[in-house]
Amino acid sequence: MPTFVQILDFIGTFAFAISGIRLASAKRFDWFGAYVVGFVTAIGGGTLRDLLLDVTPGWMTDPIYLICTGLALLWVILFGKYLIHLNNTFFIFDTIGLALFTVVGVGKSLALGFPFWVAIIMGSMTGAAGGVLRDVFINEIPLIFRKEIYAMACVVGGLAYWLCALVGLDDVVCQVVCGVVVFLTRILAVKYQICLPVLSGNEH
Amino acid sequence: MPTFVQILDFIGTFAFAISGIRLASAKRFDWFGAYVVGFVTAIGGGTLRDLLLDVTPGWMTDPIYLICTGLALLWVILFGKYLIHLNNTFFIFDTIGLALFTVVGVGKSLALGFPFWVAIIMGSMTGAAGGVLRDVFINEIPLIFRKEIYAMACVVGGLAYWLCALVGLDDVVCQVVCGVVVFLTRILAVKYQICLPVLSGNEH
Amino acid sequence: MPTFVQILDFIGTFAFAISGIRLASAKRFDWFGAYVVGFVTAIGGGTLRDLLLDVTPGWMTDPIYLICTGLALLWVILFGKYLIHLNNTFFIFDTIGLALFTVVGVGKSLALGFPFWVAIIMGSMTGAAGGVLRDVFINEIPLIFRKEIYAMACVVGGLAYWLCALVGLDDVVCQVVCGVVVFLTRILAVKYQICLPVLSGNEH
Repeated sequence: MPTFVQILDFIGTFAFAISGIRLASAKRFDWFGAYVVGFVTAIGGGTLRDLLLDVTPGWMTDPIYLICTGLALLWVILFGKYLIHLNNTFFIFDTIGLALFTVVGVGKSLALGFPFWVAIIMGSMTGAAGGVLRDVFINEIPLIFRKEIYAMACVVGGLAYWLCALVGLDDVVCQVVCGVVVFLTRILAVKYQICLPVLSGNEH
Repeated sequence: MPTFVQILDFIGTFAFAISGIRLASAKRFDWFGAYVVGFVTAIGGGTLRDLLLDVTPGWMTDPIYLICTGLALLWVILFGKYLIHLNNTFFIFDTIGLALFTVVGVGKSLALGFPFWVAIIMGSMTGAAGGVLRDVFINEIPLIFRKEIYAMACVVGGLAYWLCALVGLDDVVCQVVCGVVVFLTRILAVKYQICLPVLSGNEH
Repeated sequence: MPTFVQILDFIGTFAFAISGIRLASAKRFDWFGAYVVGFVTAIGGGTLRDLLLDVTPGWMTDPIYLICTGLALLWVILFGKYLIHLNNTFFIFDTIGLALFTVVGVGKSLALGFPFWVAIIMGSMTGAAGGVLRDVFINEIPLIFRKEIYAMACVVGGLAYWLCALVGLDDVVCQVVCGVVVFLTRILAVKYQICLPVLSGNEH
């Protein structure tokens, strides 16, 4: 039987894959292209992290991520036209995915002996870099650089993890706090439309 | 004297480099930029694969890929205006490159002890990811996500490899079958205009 | 006390981060997005090099690059509107960064036992790949492929390094010559508007 974390991981992967597949479908990609974009959205952040940490990417050791992306593609093919009514549901799933992926990224980096400031970057990358790769593939300016609190929520969650560890709290407590902080930061930022300031542009 | 596989590898690299250089020239890149795009098109897929498999990329151990890209650049500079009449020839070379790179990618992954489903992904990546990187560099939506059977042919070839191995056929036979299947799948798909379905788009 | 090379490294990182942050601000990225683009511009080339050389990227072992990018962001936020008068100053800093990063890249590759032709590619990548990643993130065709002598200056500097080593000169001398050649090549190319030929384009 899958553990609680595995179920959350599955939900996160599914939500991230859906987000990639939907944006690919808006660009009229074929099924294969949509599958690849969905897969990269789901596993891209973790893969970049694992390349930097010099370990084998998780998806190369367990086909669950491939299967999960396949189910997401099937879902969009079958229920695509109803998805528009589920935007709020997917927003919640996507934010759960963001929170969980951040926790996994921070935890994995610490377990490999990296300092906390590296772990926070790796956690944020795990959560947010897949979406950056997705946007590069569909030839758009990455969304997370322009809009909303997104990767910033991962950084805040990572800092919360650090604080808890400094105080001497148990690993599991640190991870739960980190995930909850990421989740709440994003939810509250969107609800109250909290944005980071924009740099006033002047051409290079 | 070079082996048969090395000659095919050279042809594949040359064809892939030409495809990168021609698209770069359409965007009015200078010679250096065109060379870089050609090189990345030729070795990008294999490099990504080798990073994921945690081995040193092939082009870092043998300067033949640099030389081959140089010859491709020279070719386009000298004969660029005649190339348009050779589109079919290059289509064949490009497809040979795709088939060979797939075989190399699958074989290398299996030799390193990865399971078949990883090897098939690595084979497809070896064949198709260079073209994705090329399209990202020239700021276009990657072609393979939108048009024709391309990376899909690599997947079909990889599955054929698997089937042959399951039946107990010799390694060399598996590789020949894999290459031929990739080649024929792509040729037939283009000849009979077989496409994958497009996801009906609705904006995110 | 920091060494002379560390000070140059700091200046180079700062200049590269500024270039990323300024282009991000022209696209109206928020502070976080601008920071990320600045950081990737500064450390992207070295990170790609270290992934290929299979060593831990430098920025994961020393937080100075994060701090330096933070200072660059603060600088643009505070003095952004005056920066336009400093274009020449930043051009000099940027070129110092390019020269230094090339020397570091060549030196690190040689120290790891790679041959000179690999080291020259790695040096050029260290200097120029960060700017390519920056341009991919802001969804522009990479500048270095279209304009001016830029990465080409790294290649020329790398060749000068090689020549000096062939003649039997001391490592430090080779490195100084390499850096000076990169610097002068770029400065002279811009001053006398020396460009590489552009490939006459014909559509694929």
